Amino acid sequence: MIRVGIAGAAGYTAGELIRILVNHPAVELKYAQSESHKGEPIASVHSDLIYLPLSFADIDFEDIDVLFICMGHGNSAKFLAENLVPESVKIIDLSNDFRLKADAGEFVYGAPELNREKIRAARCVANPGCFATSINLALLPLAVAGLLPEEVTVTGITGSTGAGQKPTQDTHFSNRSANLSNYKVFTHQHLGEIGETVVAAGGAETTDIAFVPVRGCHTRGIMSDVVVRLDASLEQITEIYKNYYAEHPFVCVSDKPVYMKQVVNTNYCFLSLQKEGRKLLITSVVDNLLKGASGQAVQNMNLMFGLDEMEGLRLKANYF
Amino acid sequence: MIRVGIAGAAGYTAGELIRILVNHPAVELKYAQSESHKGEPIASVHSDLIYLPLSFADIDFEDIDVLFICMGHGNSAKFLAENLVPESVKIIDLSNDFRLKADAGEFVYGAPELNREKIRAARCVANPGCFATSINLALLPLAVAGLLPEEVTVTGITGSTGAGQKPTQDTHFSNRSANLSNYKVFTHQHLGEIGETVVAAGGAETTDIAFVPVRGCHTRGIMSDVVVRLDASLEQITEIYKNYYAEHPFVCVSDKPVYMKQVVNTNYCFLSLQKEGRKLLITSVVDNLLKGASGQAVQNMNLMFGLDEMEGLRLKANYF
Amino acid sequence: MIRVGIAGAAGYTAGELIRILVNHPAVELKYAQSESHKGEPIASVHSDLIYLPLSFADIDFEDIDVLFICMGHGNSAKFLAENLVPESVKIIDLSNDFRLKADAGEFVYGAPELNREKIRAARCVANPGCFATSINLALLPLAVAGLLPEEVTVTGITGSTGAGQKPTQDTHFSNRSANLSNYKVFTHQHLGEIGETVVAAGGAETTDIAFVPVRGCHTRGIMSDVVVRLDASLEQITEIYKNYYAEHPFVCVSDKPVYMKQVVNTNYCFLSLQKEGRKLLITSVVDNLLKGASGQAVQNMNLMFGLDEMEGLRLKANYF
Amino acid sequence: MIRVGIAGAAGYTAGELIRILVNHPAVELKYAQSESHKGEPIASVHSDLIYLPLSFADIDFEDIDVLFICMGHGNSAKFLAENLVPESVKIIDLSNDFRLKADAGEFVYGAPELNREKIRAARCVANPGCFATSINLALLPLAVAGLLPEEVTVTGITGSTGAGQKPTQDTHFSNRSANLSNYKVFTHQHLGEIGETVVAAGGAETTDIAFVPVRGCHTRGIMSDVVVRLDASLEQITEIYKNYYAEHPFVCVSDKPVYMKQVVNTNYCFLSLQKEGRKLLITSVVDNLLKGASGQAVQNMNLMFGLDEMEGLRLKANYF
Repeated sequence: MIRVGIAGAAGYTAGELIRILVNHPAVELKYAQSESHKGEPIASVHSDLIYLPLSFADIDFEDIDVLFICMGHGNSAKFLAENLVPESVKIIDLSNDFRLKADAGEFVYGAPELNREKIRAARCVANPGCFATSINLALLPLAVAGLLPEEVTVTGITGSTGAGQKPTQDTHFSNRSANLSNYKVFTHQHLGEIGETVVAAGGAETTDIAFVPVRGCHTRGIMSDVVVRLDASLEQITEIYKNYYAEHPFVCVSDKPVYMKQVVNTNYCFLSLQKEGRKLLITSVVDNLLKGASGQAVQNMNLMFGLDEMEGLRLKANYF
Repeated sequence: MIRVGIAGAAGYTAGELIRILVNHPAVELKYAQSESHKGEPIASVHSDLIYLPLSFADIDFEDIDVLFICMGHGNSAKFLAENLVPESVKIIDLSNDFRLKADAGEFVYGAPELNREKIRAARCVANPGCFATSINLALLPLAVAGLLPEEVTVTGITGSTGAGQKPTQDTHFSNRSANLSNYKVFTHQHLGEIGETVVAAGGAETTDIAFVPVRGCHTRGIMSDVVVRLDASLEQITEIYKNYYAEHPFVCVSDKPVYMKQVVNTNYCFLSLQKEGRKLLITSVVDNLLKGASGQAVQNMNLMFGLDEMEGLRLKANYF
Repeated sequence: MIRVGIAGAAGYTAGELIRILVNHPAVELKYAQSESHKGEPIASVHSDLIYLPLSFADIDFEDIDVLFICMGHGNSAKFLAENLVPESVKIIDLSNDFRLKADAGEFVYGAPELNREKIRAARCVANPGCFATSINLALLPLAVAGLLPEEVTVTGITGSTGAGQKPTQDTHFSNRSANLSNYKVFTHQHLGEIGETVVAAGGAETTDIAFVPVRGCHTRGIMSDVVVRLDASLEQITEIYKNYYAEHPFVCVSDKPVYMKQVVNTNYCFLSLQKEGRKLLITSVVDNLLKGASGQAVQNMNLMFGLDEMEGLRLKANYF
Repeated sequence: MIRVGIAGAAGYTAGELIRILVNHPAVELKYAQSESHKGEPIASVHSDLIYLPLSFADIDFEDIDVLFICMGHGNSAKFLAENLVPESVKIIDLSNDFRLKADAGEFVYGAPELNREKIRAARCVANPGCFATSINLALLPLAVAGLLPEEVTVTGITGSTGAGQKPTQDTHFSNRSANLSNYKVFTHQHLGEIGETVVAAGGAETTDIAFVPVRGCHTRGIMSDVVVRLDASLEQITEIYKNYYAEHPFVCVSDKPVYMKQVVNTNYCFLSLQKEGRKLLITSVVDNLLKGASGQAVQNMNLMFGLDEMEGLRLKANYF
């Protein structure tokens, strides 16, 4: 059994990790640490888990094989600077502190569909961002095939869980319900990860991605609509995508247009392709908390420990 | 023209008042006061009104005929204790500070369907609560007819705007969306108003109202389902209700079961009656911010100034 | 491995069964039958399952150990009248055709918290209705304890999936979104099941249940608010409930008020109790498609085949 | 008083027309015609209007000054081919039958911000489509200024009311709630109107608009995000937009990013502009049933009859 600890366990992504890990057949969840909720039952925060006899505890490096860090952006780097994690403990970090090459150190960017072998060999993995995952998976095959044009336009619509647990006017139900708004237009922090992924896959350094993030009136899920103009036929492009993802069990290239709820509460990314003249639409749907965060983190853990990539991640879709 | 001032104009109910009053043909909105937003455009808070050339200002008692007080529960009493409002200025207070007999002083309880003549003659009106309005209108005719039984059971489902502007975990979109929960079970603060209304209408002091308030996953609107057991026939009861409300333009007794969106963004209360054996269901739907707050406040203003009760309140339903 | 067939596999409850069974460690799904979709991939209807290499097929009684019948109310009885299912094949029927004593024949009412031992021994099980499950679990301990009063008032709020797959005005998004309405007031078809359950548990034949079903603006989940008036203390009642459900793993009696999303996409029923004077509120939340349908059906299968009752049903909550 | 008739009055857009016209101070609604609901009260379909003593009736050309035709795409042309409307009766058609130059005949395209003077002089007006209105208003000033680039990429997210009254799987609450999907990708029927508008405003015939329509999980409202790449500065572009719309009361260019609910249940279009490098985002929000349909139709009526353009259209926003 893999002995697992979670640091910063009171947030949304940690809640999802706990929900997955308590049913993972190869995992023993040793503790879920929270400074602010120490000593309280897990269910005081993640209130579906009232049948789980576990309370928030301290961190203990001795007792675990892997530590998931869910402490929030900036806090992971601080935590690792202040604490010496033994070499025997692998680390999967869910913040954006180690995703970019300039920050990475020994961290491998945890995108299994780009870096699977590196992840298998890694001690430390930087788990990708939710929008980054959704958009990377839409762009990767095109970039690898050398077909990605200079100009890419993306609208990505995300749910309220992407904004985290803290209540704000933007996540106030009275404001968010039946509403749509844009934010961080052309400047979203995931553009760095996306750009590096595109380049790693063979795309041009100069690729110009116009990314408009949209706040949707739903809780879970991202749909990214990626528009490019290029000459290759839909058949060629479809073959490229199907070949690229043939060996990646969590990415499905659909023959029909995909929609967001197909993947909510699962670790899947579904993609579809539509073309009219030179205009190509690549649609990518993921659950921002699973394939976009905690599910992918467990997928990375599976790879790092030599398990079946899907272990513990065959989740029943919520679907409705 | 009635010269109007609003005190505490940055909250939800004040926003609705402004939306109504800027189109009210007999009203001149002199100012909307806000301590925290003084000097900022109205649209900095009520952001649909970007075409309105008006900024948050100070209170000035000289310039107005009526003051709406939207300062929140507890603050109205404090404000009136600290400020001497000239006799020439009428007051409509939207808090619960003056609704109960013990607190009322010269305030009349502003339920037009109970106290229309008193409101016409009043200088000060205490505007009823949203749940109280919804439930009072369901119970009034039965109480007046002497048919209200000892035991009444009410489920009232309300929208997130009832919880006000401040973001909390209860109004966080991630929690509230697609969810239902109860709160203040059997102890909601409107029970006082409801009890006094029932007694004022001829009901027994001992009427036992079991009221379960429910947080719904919508923003606007209350549906109250009132269950009582009694012998009178549906025909008799229907006639009682239709007669009682015949002269009250904002209450409609429907022959078909009513639903909430029939009245959202209007000042109407729709009622329907269904009976099976001795069991009677009275369903009452209102918009909590309009008939349950700001719309009823304007209705009261119309009465206090001798206007048509519906003036400025013929609002297009949102409907969908 | 238990070999499973599903008859009528294109509807909502069959979709949920498939989602559960493909991950159930003791089950081999032999076929999912659909007349109208025969030969098409499962994913043509249940579109999250595009990675599942299975098409809708015919029924074959030879190849299975148990048949789930999801053909809709009335059609199950017709199907079994026209087809002789071999004695070696167990049957779990999800319609209301065999739930009432008068219709049951050899069918056992499949409420594990009432009839666990009978279900273990049964060849045929009639799976309870969704509202019935929710309300039965709220009433059972009180009835067994002899404390259930004559008059019970229930408001049960349900999601759109309870209305099935066929699009109607009642399930039209434009009508249902941000709306609330009542239906089948005091006459819902589950009242028969609930009444028989209450009596089976020791309640009075004359128990008068006023049940108001409400259409909520969500897709999955039921919250039932049950109000009774009685003298026993909250402590006594709580102990009765906790004792009653101590050995039933899918029912949790919570010390805090429960809310609906705690159980969505799980097989749990959560209950909470609140009391004020003689008024008691019992709140019961279930996922109408799981504990209220397909999850409970698999729970019954587990019992009928001597498996751990929770096998295959440790589902990750959707939670948000 | 303008005497008004409505043909095809049982659909969504006709319902909105009735809601507006019954409160329009210069209008007398003579009849609302419906073949399928003839003789029934208006409220049998538009159920908020239970206080309106009006039933669906026949068409009578003698009694009216203007006829709104809400019969659906294809049916307007058929109706006018089969019926001779007297010259004295003006016509406002809400279908797409007469919007394109090739089909228009004496119909003027009813976009007041493009064709105000022509509409004032017109007998027949073809009311624009909802997406077309939203996108045209985003593109017009740029096209007039000669700054519109060859390549335009638009994501437009719309509510369920855009899909009309007939229940389908796409508008089933169980499917649409908390979901997102694309449809008619790059081929939406409004592209014709948009293209002709761009050209009429001075844009190139070869303008290539990549339009991805998205089904959102809300009922009312469209947010269109238009991305172009160009060199002009944000200040220049903002000035162009503000100048262009200075005399158009229903279009507001906001200094802050706009969001959809600012305009829901109003006749406004709000626009905002954001730029980063060469990338420009123009965001346009409208209520698809009002500025995108019935509100704009009344705006056109006001122009055709020499009234204040805003008469009857100062609607209280739903806002929440």
